[in-house]
Amino acid sequence: MNTTDFPFSSETYIQRRKVLIDEVGSGKILFLGNGYSSRNFEDNAYKFRQDSSFLYYIGLNRDGLNAVIDCDNGETILFGDDVSLDHVVWMGEQEKLEDMAAKVGISAIQPSQRIFDFVDKSTLYLPPYRSAHTIKLETYCDIKEINPSLKLIHAIVRQRNIKSAEEINYLHKASTYTANMHKVVMQFAKAGMSEYELVAQASKVALSKNAAWSFTPILTVNGQTLHNHNYGNTLKEGDLLLFDGGIEHSSGYAGDMTRTFPVSSKFTSQQKDIYNVVKAAHDIAIPASKPGVYYKDVHLLSCLEIAKGLTDIGLMKGDPEEAVEEGAHALFFPHGLGHMIGLDVHDMENLGENFVGYDDTIRKSTEFGLKSLRLARPLQTGNAITIEPGIYMIPQLIEKWQAEGIHAEFLNFDVINKYRDFGGIRIENDFVIEEQGAVLLGDALVYDAESVEALRG
Amino acid sequence: MNTTDFPFSSETYIQRRKVLIDEVGSGKILFLGNGYSSRNFEDNAYKFRQDSSFLYYIGLNRDGLNAVIDCDNGETILFGDDVSLDHVVWMGEQEKLEDMAAKVGISAIQPSQRIFDFVDKSTLYLPPYRSAHTIKLETYCDIKEINPSLKLIHAIVRQRNIKSAEEINYLHKASTYTANMHKVVMQFAKAGMSEYELVAQASKVALSKNAAWSFTPILTVNGQTLHNHNYGNTLKEGDLLLFDGGIEHSSGYAGDMTRTFPVSSKFTSQQKDIYNVVKAAHDIAIPASKPGVYYKDVHLLSCLEIAKGLTDIGLMKGDPEEAVEEGAHALFFPHGLGHMIGLDVHDMENLGENFVGYDDTIRKSTEFGLKSLRLARPLQTGNAITIEPGIYMIPQLIEKWQAEGIHAEFLNFDVINKYRDFGGIRIENDFVIEEQGAVLLGDALVYDAESVEALRG
Repeated sequence: MNTTDFPFSSETYIQRRKVLIDEVGSGKILFLGNGYSSRNFEDNAYKFRQDSSFLYYIGLNRDGLNAVIDCDNGETILFGDDVSLDHVVWMGEQEKLEDMAAKVGISAIQPSQRIFDFVDKSTLYLPPYRSAHTIKLETYCDIKEINPSLKLIHAIVRQRNIKSAEEINYLHKASTYTANMHKVVMQFAKAGMSEYELVAQASKVALSKNAAWSFTPILTVNGQTLHNHNYGNTLKEGDLLLFDGGIEHSSGYAGDMTRTFPVSSKFTSQQKDIYNVVKAAHDIAIPASKPGVYYKDVHLLSCLEIAKGLTDIGLMKGDPEEAVEEGAHALFFPHGLGHMIGLDVHDMENLGENFVGYDDTIRKSTEFGLKSLRLARPLQTGNAITIEPGIYMIPQLIEKWQAEGIHAEFLNFDVINKYRDFGGIRIENDFVIEEQGAVLLGDALVYDAESVEALRG
Repeated sequence: MNTTDFPFSSETYIQRRKVLIDEVGSGKILFLGNGYSSRNFEDNAYKFRQDSSFLYYIGLNRDGLNAVIDCDNGETILFGDDVSLDHVVWMGEQEKLEDMAAKVGISAIQPSQRIFDFVDKSTLYLPPYRSAHTIKLETYCDIKEINPSLKLIHAIVRQRNIKSAEEINYLHKASTYTANMHKVVMQFAKAGMSEYELVAQASKVALSKNAAWSFTPILTVNGQTLHNHNYGNTLKEGDLLLFDGGIEHSSGYAGDMTRTFPVSSKFTSQQKDIYNVVKAAHDIAIPASKPGVYYKDVHLLSCLEIAKGLTDIGLMKGDPEEAVEEGAHALFFPHGLGHMIGLDVHDMENLGENFVGYDDTIRKSTEFGLKSLRLARPLQTGNAITIEPGIYMIPQLIEKWQAEGIHAEFLNFDVINKYRDFGGIRIENDFVIEEQGAVLLGDALVYDAESVEALRG
C-alpha cells in the first residue's frame, strides 16, 4: 500500500474534472486505477505505479481504485474498499478512503464491486496498456471488444499537453534530480567498472530522493543500440559511455536526460568531432522550439545540422539539404528529436502517439527515421518536451545500406566504415515551451565537450 | 531484451523435462513464458522477470517465448520469433533462437503464432499469476475458465522442492550477496537518515552484483507492520530498524534475510530482552529442522520458546505450553516460522501454498497465526527454507484482544501496553536441509545482540 501524496489542491482536481466534463459533454467516463503487477508470483509485485490519467484527474496514489465521472450530472464516484483489521496487521494503519477522497474533492464513494451497476457498453474509457485492465473493461462494461473513446482521448490530450505552473514546478524538480544523477555518474565512472555498478550508483541517487526511475535506464558503452537494457560490459579506456536515465519525482512527473562522455579523461579527436556535431544539432533546436512552430521542422533543422557536420567530417557528401530531404542522415540519426514529457516520460503514449504528438494538420511519415518521430505538431505554450539528437554507428544498418546502395549519393561508406565500432552519442535535455521560447527544465548540467572533460577530471 | 544466461547444462534441462514427462505420463504441458509488464504505458516496462517454472524446465531468460512439452512423444517445442533488422537498431544484435534453444537441449522451434495448432482444451497448464497469461490461456486453449492441472502442479512441486547440488550452490551465492547487503546497511544506518536512503544503499549493493532484489524490501522503523513498503520515516535514536530484504542471483535463485538492529549504538535493555527471545526462537529451530520432521512442529517449538521468553519477561503468564496450544503467543508472532525458497523467494507460491508447504498428511489450520504458516510438511533432504521468527507489538491487535478478552488468561495486558510503541523484531536466515540437518545458506552474518552492537560500532 502506498502513501497518498497530494501534489495539488482539491480545487485543482475539481477544476481538471470540470474542464474534462465540459469537453466531453455527455456520458460516463471510466478511469481504471492501477493494481500491483505480479513479478514471479501473485504476491511478489513490482513497485506500484498509478495510472497517469488517474493521477491527473483523481489524484489518489493507491492501488485497487477505480473512478467514474458522470458528465451528465457532473458527479465523480470513487470505487474502492477500506482495509480489514487482518490487513492492518500486514500493511499497517491505512488512511480511510473517505478522508483521502475528500482531499481530491470527491465525496461519493462506493464499494469496489458496485462498479458493475455504474458502467455499461456505452461507458467511455481509455486504451488499456495492462492486461489486467483489458480484463476489467471486458468484465465491468460487458463488452467483447475494446473500443476506446476517441473523444475522450482528444479531450485528455488537449488538457494534459498544456502544463500548468504547478506542473512545470514539479517537472523542474524531476529534471533537477535527474541532472544531479547524471552528474554523479559522470564523476564516478572509471575504466574497469561494469555498467551495472554505474546503474547501481544512479539507482542510489534516484532512491535517495524518495523518487523512482521514470523508465529503465540505458547505460551502455554500446550507445548505438538505442534501447539497450543490458549492463554487462566493463568500461574500457577509449570507450564512450552513453547514459539515458530519468528520475520520476514523487508527484509522478518525469525527468529524462542523456549524457555521453569518454571513459578516458578526454575525448579522442574522432569522438570530439562527432560529439560537437550532436551538440550543434541539440543547440540549434533550442531557439527554434517556439509556440506555433511545427516540431517536425525543428527535428529537420537538427537533421540538417547533423548532415552538414557529417559532410564537413567526410562521412556524408553532396548537398546536406538534399541529403535530409532524401532521408540519408537517418543512417546516423534514425530516431526522432524528442517527445512530450509529463506524468509519463513519453507523455500519454498509451493514449496514442498520433493523438499526442500529431494533430489534424500533420500525419506521421512512413520514412525511415521520420516514422520514429514521436512529436511533430506545432508547439504550444505550456508543452514540456525533450530535445535529444544523436549520432550512431550501427554496423548492421551500415552493412545493409551499403550492400543495397541506399542513399549512396550522400554517404561515404569508405569513411563510414572506419567508424563502425564508434558506438553512439546522444545529448538530451528537457524544456518547457513558454511564450518567448524553450526554457530549460531543472538545473543546468554541462554538456559542451570541454566542460564534460573537466567534470570527468 | 535480456541476455540469456544458462546456469545449467543442456543435459540438466533435458533431464528435468524427462523426469516431468515420466511423472505426468501423458498429454501436453504448456509453459507460458513471461513478457514485459507495462508500468504507466505499454513500452515503459518493469524489469523483465522470466517465469520460474519456465526457467527451471526451459531455461531461456528472454521475453516472448512459450513452450509445449508433449508427454506422449517426449518432444519439447519452443514457440518464439527472431527479431527483424528494425529491431536490431533498437535492441542490438540478438542471439538466434535456434542457438539459444540448442543450449537447453531443444531443437524444435516454431513461430509464436503456431502455438494455436499445438494446444487445446485438453492441454495441461499452471495457475496464471499475470493477467496477460490468463488472456493467453483463454485464447490459445480456447477455454472460458481457468482449470490448472493438479497433476502437473504436484509433479513440479515434487521436483522443484528438492534442490540439486548445483541449485544449492546458486542459493549459497544469493544468500552470500544478501548477507553482504545486510551488513552494509547495518554499518551505514545512522539517526537522521531516512529509510529510503538506506533502501538506496541496499539497492546499490544488489545492483552492483548484476543482481536484483528477490522482492520489494521491507526497511522500516515500524517493524510491527509486517509487509510495510513505505520508506518515508527518519531514523531516530532509540528506534529499532527492521530490514527484510533479499538478492536474486543472476541465475534466478533468491536470498531472503532479516536483521533488526538499534539505530543507537546499543539496544535498550527492553529491546535486548525481546531481541534475545527472538534469537532463542530462531536458534532452537535450526537443530530441529531435520529430514522427516514436520516443519509445523519446528514452528510450534519456536512459538513455545517465544511464549517461555515472554512469560519470563512478564508479558505472558500461565503455562507456556498451554498458551501455545491455545494460540495466545500469536498476538506477538502472528506469522509462520518460514517458507520454501528457490527460484521464487516464496518458492512456487503461484502453484499454491497448500501444495508446496503441505501434503496429504497435513492440512492448513484456520487458527490466527497458524493460518499464516506457509510451510508445515515434513522436511526432506534438499529442501531450502527460511527460519524467521519475530515478536511484534501491534497496537490495533493488542487493543482488540484486550477489549474482547482474547486469551486473557495468558496475556498480561498491563505489561503489554507498556510495549505498545515497541515496534517489531525479526531474525531470518536461509538453510538447506541435508541428511544431518539444517545447513546455513551463504556466508554467516552475525545476529547475536552483542555482535550486532559491535557491527553498529
